[in-house]
Amino acid sequence: MSFSEQDHAYMRRALALAEKVLYLTDPNPRVGCVIVKDGIVIGEGATQKVGGPHAEVMAIQDAKHRGYANQLAGSTFYVTLEPCSHFGRTPPCADALVTHQVGRVVVASLDPNPLVGGKGIAKLREAGIQVDYPLLAEEALAINTGFISRMAAQRPWTWTKLACSLDGKVALNNGVSQWITAEPARRDGQHWRARSSVVLTGIGTILKDNPLLNVRAIATERQPIRAVIDGQFQIPEDAQIFNGSPVWIFTHTDNSAKRVRLQAKNVDVIVLPKKGEYIDLAEVWQVLMQRGINEVHVEAGPTLNGALLEAGLIDELLIYMAPKILGPGQSLFNLPALSDLSAVKQFTWVEQLAVGQDLRLRLRAKERWNTLLQAIV
Amino acid sequence: MSFSEQDHAYMRRALALAEKVLYLTDPNPRVGCVIVKDGIVIGEGATQKVGGPHAEVMAIQDAKHRGYANQLAGSTFYVTLEPCSHFGRTPPCADALVTHQVGRVVVASLDPNPLVGGKGIAKLREAGIQVDYPLLAEEALAINTGFISRMAAQRPWTWTKLACSLDGKVALNNGVSQWITAEPARRDGQHWRARSSVVLTGIGTILKDNPLLNVRAIATERQPIRAVIDGQFQIPEDAQIFNGSPVWIFTHTDNSAKRVRLQAKNVDVIVLPKKGEYIDLAEVWQVLMQRGINEVHVEAGPTLNGALLEAGLIDELLIYMAPKILGPGQSLFNLPALSDLSAVKQFTWVEQLAVGQDLRLRLRAKERWNTLLQAIV
Repeated sequence: MSFSEQDHAYMRRALALAEKVLYLTDPNPRVGCVIVKDGIVIGEGATQKVGGPHAEVMAIQDAKHRGYANQLAGSTFYVTLEPCSHFGRTPPCADALVTHQVGRVVVASLDPNPLVGGKGIAKLREAGIQVDYPLLAEEALAINTGFISRMAAQRPWTWTKLACSLDGKVALNNGVSQWITAEPARRDGQHWRARSSVVLTGIGTILKDNPLLNVRAIATERQPIRAVIDGQFQIPEDAQIFNGSPVWIFTHTDNSAKRVRLQAKNVDVIVLPKKGEYIDLAEVWQVLMQRGINEVHVEAGPTLNGALLEAGLIDELLIYMAPKILGPGQSLFNLPALSDLSAVKQFTWVEQLAVGQDLRLRLRAKERWNTLLQAIV
Repeated sequence: MSFSEQDHAYMRRALALAEKVLYLTDPNPRVGCVIVKDGIVIGEGATQKVGGPHAEVMAIQDAKHRGYANQLAGSTFYVTLEPCSHFGRTPPCADALVTHQVGRVVVASLDPNPLVGGKGIAKLREAGIQVDYPLLAEEALAINTGFISRMAAQRPWTWTKLACSLDGKVALNNGVSQWITAEPARRDGQHWRARSSVVLTGIGTILKDNPLLNVRAIATERQPIRAVIDGQFQIPEDAQIFNGSPVWIFTHTDNSAKRVRLQAKNVDVIVLPKKGEYIDLAEVWQVLMQRGINEVHVEAGPTLNGALLEAGLIDELLIYMAPKILGPGQSLFNLPALSDLSAVKQFTWVEQLAVGQDLRLRLRAKERWNTLLQAIV
C-alpha cells in the first residue's frame, strides 16, 4: 500500500489528536480521528475517558456541529486504530462509519484486541468502503504501546524511570540522591507517570523516601493506580501513599488484620507465592495483566530494578542522565556479577533529548517492540 | 557587528576547509580561507603541515591558479583565524593581504597567540582594509580548541575517550572489556586520536592490553605522539607501543640504564617529581604545554581517569555508550567517595550522536570553554 503526502499529513494530525488524550483514556487505547472531504477537514475527535465516545464518534459529532452532516457520505476517515466492531461500553464504530456511507477509511494500525482483530476492517470492506492500512503504524504503536502489548502479548508494557549520573550512579554510597537531576527532568518524569496505568515501586523506596507517587506538576483528569512490591508486608500503615486513592500492595506475607485495616484506606493487598527468597515478579505482572493494566511506570531503587531486569520484565528504560560524575555510589541495577560480556542485557536506543541541563535517554527491548509492531500491521 | 547571510555562508565554507586539515597542521592551528569577489568564490585554501603555507597564501595561490590574480584587489577574505602578523616559519599573512590590496577581511576568531593577539588585525586596518570579527567564533574554537587553550590558557585541551555501558561500566569485575561498544564507535574513536597532538595512556592499560595507540582505520599524514604515565617505570621494553615512532614516558622513577636503552627506540623518558604517592600530573601537563602539545587524547583505565579528573585536568569527555547493562564492574572513574552531592564533578552536554548501535556523548567543562571563547572574540 502506498500513501500520498496528504494521507501522511492527515494521519499525523490524527496521531496528534490521540496524543492529546494520552493521560485520559486508560485502560482504553488513545485514538485520534480526522474526517476529510474534498480536501477540507470537516471533523476531528479523540477517544474520551472510559465509557465516553470513541474517536470516530467524536469526529462525526464534530463534523455535524460544524454543519458538515451532509458531507460525511463519501468522506475519508483517518483513524489511528482499527475501528471497533463489537458492542463494548459503546456501540461499534465500524457500524457508525457504514451508516454514514463513508467513502474511504485510512487506518494507522490494526487493533490486536481479540474482539476486533481485523473484524472492524472486514465489516467496512463488506459494506463497500475502501480501507487502507497500515500508515505510520510505529507512531501509532508508540501512543498505545501498553494497550497493544496487553492485547497482542498478554502482558503490560513496562518502563522504568531512572535518574542517574554520567557514571550510572543513582545515589552516593551513603544513600544521598536528592537531587541528581534538575527540576525540568523531574517535571518531565511526571508526564510518564501521567500516561501510565500504574506507578509501581518497591518497599525500599517507600521506607526511604515515603513518596506519594501521584501525578502533580502537570494537569490530568485521571490518576494512575499506585502499587508497591512489599514481599514482607513491611509498609507502615501511616505511609503517605495511603491518601485515599487506590493502592495495590503485592506481598508474599499474609497478615489479614493489617490487610483489613488497609482496605479501609482503599488499599488492595494481593498475596502471591514466593519464587526463591522473593515474591514471584512474573506472578505480579500476571495480576497486572488480569486487572487490565496497560502501562507500568516503575520508579524504584536498584534492588527492585535489578530483579525486574533479571526477570525480563523491563521493556523500556527512561533514563534522566545528569552531566555529573559521582564516583563510588549505588548503581542503576543491583545485579549478580557476569563472567563474560555475551550475557549482558541489551537494549536499543530510541531517543536522546536534552531536558534542561540533563539528558533524557530512552531505550527499548527491540524484540518485544518488533513483536508488537508485527501484530498491528 | 552584524553579518549578512552570505558572510555566514562563506565563513562556514572556510570552517569546512579548516576541518579538512584537522589531522594535518598540528602544532599549528587549522585555518581555512575563502576569497570572494563580486559574489564569486575566486580562491580557497587551508593551512598545510608545519612549515608549509598558511590558509591565506594557499587561497591566493588558488586564485592565481584559477586566473583571478587581477581580481584580488578589492576582494573579501573569509579567514577562520586572525591572519598572522609575525615572521614564523613563513612570512606574515597580513602582509600578503596588504600587498594584494584586499578590500575586506572577515575573521572568525582572534588569534590568542601572544605573537599575534590583535596585531594582525591592527596591521590590516592600518593599511585601510576593513576588518570584521568575530563571526562563528564558537565553531572556530571547536576546530582549534587545543591551540587556543595553549595560547590563551597556557595548557593543552584534554579529552578522555571512554567506552562504557549504560550503567557506566568500562569492564566486568574480572577485567573483561572487549568489546563493550561496536565497530562503528571504535572507528569513530580513531578520528579523535588523529586530530590530537598526543595520545596518552597509563601503565595499567599498557600492561593489560599492550596497545599500539596509533591511528589506524583512517588515513592521516601525521601520527600523534604517544605518551604513557608510568610512575614506577614498569613498562616492558618489548611493549608494542615501541614501534619506532616517538613515545614519551612520564615517570618519577629514574632508571638511567633502561632510559638509555629505550632512547634507541625513539623513546623519551621524562622524570618528574611525585605528588603524594603518584607522579604530579599537573607537572606532566606543564611539560606537555612546554613541548607545544595542543590537544591531549586520553585513552586509559579508571585509575588514571580518576586521577586526572581529581586533578582538574579533564576538559572534555568523549563517551561511547553501549545500550547494555553490565551490572557489577569497573566504573568509568576511580574516585574517593563523596558525602554530599555538592562536590560532584559537573560538565555540560555538548553532543549526543548515534554511532552505529552506540551513542557518542560529549561533555565539556563549561568554564574552561567560556574562558577560551572570551579570549578570541
